[in-house]
Amino acid sequence: MGSVFGNKVKISIFGESHGTAIGVVIDGLPSGEAIDLEEVYRQMARRAPGNDKTATPRKEPDKPEILSGLLNGCTTGAPLAAVIYNTNTRSGDYGNIMTSPRPGHSDYTAYVRYGGFNDVRGGGHFSGRLTANMVFAGAVVRQILKRKGIEIAAHIYSIGNVCDKAFEPTGISRELIERLNGEKFALVDPDKEESMREEVESARNAGDSIGGIVECIVQGMPVGIGEPMFGGVENIISAAVFGVPAVKGIEFGSGFAGSHTTGLNNNDEFYYDENGFVKTKTNNHGGALGGITSGMPILFRAAVKPTPSVSAEQKTVDLAAKSNTVLAVKGRHDPCIVPRAVSVIEAAAAIAVINMI
Amino acid sequence: MGSVFGNKVKISIFGESHGTAIGVVIDGLPSGEAIDLEEVYRQMARRAPGNDKTATPRKEPDKPEILSGLLNGCTTGAPLAAVIYNTNTRSGDYGNIMTSPRPGHSDYTAYVRYGGFNDVRGGGHFSGRLTANMVFAGAVVRQILKRKGIEIAAHIYSIGNVCDKAFEPTGISRELIERLNGEKFALVDPDKEESMREEVESARNAGDSIGGIVECIVQGMPVGIGEPMFGGVENIISAAVFGVPAVKGIEFGSGFAGSHTTGLNNNDEFYYDENGFVKTKTNNHGGALGGITSGMPILFRAAVKPTPSVSAEQKTVDLAAKSNTVLAVKGRHDPCIVPRAVSVIEAAAAIAVINMI
Amino acid sequence: MGSVFGNKVKISIFGESHGTAIGVVIDGLPSGEAIDLEEVYRQMARRAPGNDKTATPRKEPDKPEILSGLLNGCTTGAPLAAVIYNTNTRSGDYGNIMTSPRPGHSDYTAYVRYGGFNDVRGGGHFSGRLTANMVFAGAVVRQILKRKGIEIAAHIYSIGNVCDKAFEPTGISRELIERLNGEKFALVDPDKEESMREEVESARNAGDSIGGIVECIVQGMPVGIGEPMFGGVENIISAAVFGVPAVKGIEFGSGFAGSHTTGLNNNDEFYYDENGFVKTKTNNHGGALGGITSGMPILFRAAVKPTPSVSAEQKTVDLAAKSNTVLAVKGRHDPCIVPRAVSVIEAAAAIAVINMI
Amino acid sequence: MGSVFGNKVKISIFGESHGTAIGVVIDGLPSGEAIDLEEVYRQMARRAPGNDKTATPRKEPDKPEILSGLLNGCTTGAPLAAVIYNTNTRSGDYGNIMTSPRPGHSDYTAYVRYGGFNDVRGGGHFSGRLTANMVFAGAVVRQILKRKGIEIAAHIYSIGNVCDKAFEPTGISRELIERLNGEKFALVDPDKEESMREEVESARNAGDSIGGIVECIVQGMPVGIGEPMFGGVENIISAAVFGVPAVKGIEFGSGFAGSHTTGLNNNDEFYYDENGFVKTKTNNHGGALGGITSGMPILFRAAVKPTPSVSAEQKTVDLAAKSNTVLAVKGRHDPCIVPRAVSVIEAAAAIAVINMI
Repeated sequence: MGSVFGNKVKISIFGESHGTAIGVVIDGLPSGEAIDLEEVYRQMARRAPGNDKTATPRKEPDKPEILSGLLNGCTTGAPLAAVIYNTNTRSGDYGNIMTSPRPGHSDYTAYVRYGGFNDVRGGGHFSGRLTANMVFAGAVVRQILKRKGIEIAAHIYSIGNVCDKAFEPTGISRELIERLNGEKFALVDPDKEESMREEVESARNAGDSIGGIVECIVQGMPVGIGEPMFGGVENIISAAVFGVPAVKGIEFGSGFAGSHTTGLNNNDEFYYDENGFVKTKTNNHGGALGGITSGMPILFRAAVKPTPSVSAEQKTVDLAAKSNTVLAVKGRHDPCIVPRAVSVIEAAAAIAVINMI
Repeated sequence: MGSVFGNKVKISIFGESHGTAIGVVIDGLPSGEAIDLEEVYRQMARRAPGNDKTATPRKEPDKPEILSGLLNGCTTGAPLAAVIYNTNTRSGDYGNIMTSPRPGHSDYTAYVRYGGFNDVRGGGHFSGRLTANMVFAGAVVRQILKRKGIEIAAHIYSIGNVCDKAFEPTGISRELIERLNGEKFALVDPDKEESMREEVESARNAGDSIGGIVECIVQGMPVGIGEPMFGGVENIISAAVFGVPAVKGIEFGSGFAGSHTTGLNNNDEFYYDENGFVKTKTNNHGGALGGITSGMPILFRAAVKPTPSVSAEQKTVDLAAKSNTVLAVKGRHDPCIVPRAVSVIEAAAAIAVINMI
Repeated sequence: MGSVFGNKVKISIFGESHGTAIGVVIDGLPSGEAIDLEEVYRQMARRAPGNDKTATPRKEPDKPEILSGLLNGCTTGAPLAAVIYNTNTRSGDYGNIMTSPRPGHSDYTAYVRYGGFNDVRGGGHFSGRLTANMVFAGAVVRQILKRKGIEIAAHIYSIGNVCDKAFEPTGISRELIERLNGEKFALVDPDKEESMREEVESARNAGDSIGGIVECIVQGMPVGIGEPMFGGVENIISAAVFGVPAVKGIEFGSGFAGSHTTGLNNNDEFYYDENGFVKTKTNNHGGALGGITSGMPILFRAAVKPTPSVSAEQKTVDLAAKSNTVLAVKGRHDPCIVPRAVSVIEAAAAIAVINMI
Repeated sequence: MGSVFGNKVKISIFGESHGTAIGVVIDGLPSGEAIDLEEVYRQMARRAPGNDKTATPRKEPDKPEILSGLLNGCTTGAPLAAVIYNTNTRSGDYGNIMTSPRPGHSDYTAYVRYGGFNDVRGGGHFSGRLTANMVFAGAVVRQILKRKGIEIAAHIYSIGNVCDKAFEPTGISRELIERLNGEKFALVDPDKEESMREEVESARNAGDSIGGIVECIVQGMPVGIGEPMFGGVENIISAAVFGVPAVKGIEFGSGFAGSHTTGLNNNDEFYYDENGFVKTKTNNHGGALGGITSGMPILFRAAVKPTPSVSAEQKTVDLAAKSNTVLAVKGRHDPCIVPRAVSVIEAAAAIAVINMI
């Protein structure tokens, strides 16, 4: 638990936002898997801030150095370790976080949990910057999964009240997967970008931020993967996806909407397709029945809360003075992390899936 | 994983619906904890079918026999094991499940997963009957938690489109907790029962079923509990709650609704209360920030899909004949498992919480 | 940890010697494996006391009832649970253990660990009787392993200072494996039985007990099984074998003796055998190099301390009076548990191995 | 599993001998613990080769860089990560290992396990060099343990047939602990050094190597620590200690010798000491009864096989040509790793202990 995930393939994440470095160790990868590092870096660039107008202005090169586990481009079977050195290790901007916790951030809970010894600069170990490690691990894992026919894609399902077109629950085309895997602002319907960006700019101008929903699909899963009860698809994926900061909800298939309907509406009828495979006509179950894959795509949506980083003044406490106070965090903030969360949630799904197959 | 949950307190669940017995082993309980078995049985009765007009007519005595771990009413520190012998071990009604998987059930996925060797009678290991074990374990654990000031309650948030009054996110009264803990049809606003039951009867009359949402609150958690990333409150609770059959979604605090709002709306401002404790004025974060408890109640909602057991005819496949077919499952079905899911979800929360503290 | 072992196949053991029942849940077995229960009972009979003149006179029927996980003689894939009800639940003989811990037993450490709430009757959860569960689980697992060509045998390597002929480290015949698997007093050289029994009787007559060593071989392991560092053959097997009460040491291959020699003596040279398989001429490495199987038999010896149950008077403390005292435990004791430990150690090896392959 | 150890405090080790770097991530350390890095480096220097005449001539600076988890000299509670860059990344000397596995090394088993994709240079992930990570982690952990009154020391119990004076099983003085913790050739009786070094030189001159035994003591453990069955002191310590390359046996207390004696000889009688603490007069049980600490020192001995690195010619196979061949590994070898294993085994004990308390 904590910063280690997985049973078959263990992902151990370390680092603090303004410490020396962040990084990840992946133990249990099969050997002999070719890893295209350029593709890994491309996935990491999708998450990286500073390359897009909705993102935070802070520059992060974020190019990981491989320390072990790769030789001649292939996994050796030993733990694959990567490190990203931090270039921004100044702490000046974050001084008053130490005594005045930012609403919606982990400042207060971490302060209590770690007795004030945690590194608060930039959020420390809780910083969104740490998700670079998850994307790295996910991008490595996805290349292995792809060779088994398993592909993952996600898109911005909504920002504020602007919604993208939803994924077709019974499956999307490879072309769409590939296109989305290459985008920083991933949408099924690119025409929605403009109104979404307006939503973001509107929040920015108000010194505010805006949340959204990410929808993710895992295609090509074999039938019969997963364990009953606590080892099911939903258990494992949710345990990984809630590792993505700001995620506060997850639903599979018809999810919450399905709970308002009836069984005859929500049940997915089985049929033999033209190739003799058992399929379901609809995919309200989201790819898992009894926790076990049905062969239909795993489909889930994750609720991403509006980033708590806002520049407007908020009420909070002064833990040193033990009094109420107000706080305004200076600096420019990324008012919407949803576009970047897309690649992180894909990575979390990948990390979960490789621990199931 | 699989049918074992937990790290500090391990819950190992066994049994098949129509096999010899079902049961549970709880390893890692502290010693010297008095367990009131009558209270445990009361909690189990809340889940048991057959005692309520919305429930399935099948009678289950479901009184567990304690095999170990309790002496003179106190936990010994050794694994606490309990068994419930099955009285209904006939298989007649379930014959055609073997070849014709019921839509929405795990029949097909389990068939593939276990190569047809799984016990399909009554759903086998996937039967909702297995949740009796979870309620047993949860009821034991809750007595230990209560002694630490931690209390859990849940209610039927909605059935179909009829909603109960929501919990006050910043906390509910002990009176309400106690009342809900004693009810089989747990509602904040009991006046909603009639229209909810109408929803259920309407589904029953159509040979259909109806889903709903359960809202659960955990009060009295100390501040600073939980681990970052993959060991947070949301990770652990969701990993347990998705172990409850039919749960397809979970959201904490403002959850999905919160993702449609802005940071200034969703952030919970801190303040010192009259006793000098740090609190938040609202509880959109649902009790955890960065995965770590804030001292505010843990609040979550779980989407329970309409039970796939319907008596109307549905299309499916015949796995033996490798052809499409239709299926009508005879017998009377409980058209709404949401009232009974309340106690199971409370139990899952308890099992999760005792693994965090 | 605690009473749960394993990662792929989880063995959860419960029960107290004089409680209602003891039992075991095995989660993660493959489905469709035929289990011959008569063979399981035969293995359990090898461990059971009362059927042999060296054993304790207490009668234990020890016939487990299968509660789940088996249908028509095959594993269903759901947890396989078995229970053995205790017939001897009297506590009379053990009264003074509560305040005067027996030297060499876990009475004192369990008293502190569990604050005096543990069930002390007959050793409670620490009783050797609990090993019946391990033999049950091991016997089930061994049938699955045997179908993969993996067989396990052990023998009494020594009792006191009387030694059996050692196993041929590079492998033993199937005939020998089968003979040993059927014996309660398993020896490579049956002529040693008489002098071993003399050693036992001599201890018995002195109100004393005697220890010994069990040697165990696992044949047919594929090459390349195991993980480096903490997931190696020695780590996993030792973690299981130290779960057998009274085991205080373990060594693989040449073990401690090998540490007194030189590399040229201890290294096992490789060669191609007549079938084109890589073998080693000797097996000082005990079947694992770098924690990973070499294809040679896994060979280990476990030191079994003399059972602390003696009838002669011993000094101890009175925890109630907080004073020194003397203790003589009435009743007849089994002065040598080594013959019965043979089947338990085989079972522990089996439980370890199925978690590696 | 694999290169990750621990449940409460997870140690994740990565690196290959001639790759870019080796390192370790320690997740789960308490926050606010002051770590004296100079003391950590001193412990690492005890393990490092090249500073002692018995050691390999290869120079390793081995000064780890701290990447995260430490701030102002104290643990932050986030994972503590450290990396050591490799300076020797040439592979020239090791070319023929790729096809001709060295007897006694993991070359062959790793070749099969990893399908030939593992990094064979210098032993890759199986290199003794990786133990630097373990000593780093152990040295960090030991400072935390020491603050709780728990201290660990080990010495060269034997090299070849030359034995040091054994530890007094009921406890050693703090002076002795401190002296041993500072030595590279740790002996209770320093007069034994000369004859031990003669044993080593004799092996060196023959192109051979020599094994030995390390004895380790853990003092100051509270009473009542550990879990029954698979979570006991012996299980956890052995699972860690077998993670030290070349360890092939472990025994606690009287161990194998105790198995040749009787219960009355081996049982440790209890008494109240002058301070009112329960003690045992002897410590044949090695500090654990039923897997749970007794308050007496944990005492164990680990058998270290003669390092398989010898310069004399040995028979092996040529995996490419599929034929038998002979191999002579050029270069100077450290003929005895036992002195350096002392600090590694202390570290393994520390890593195990922090996962128990």
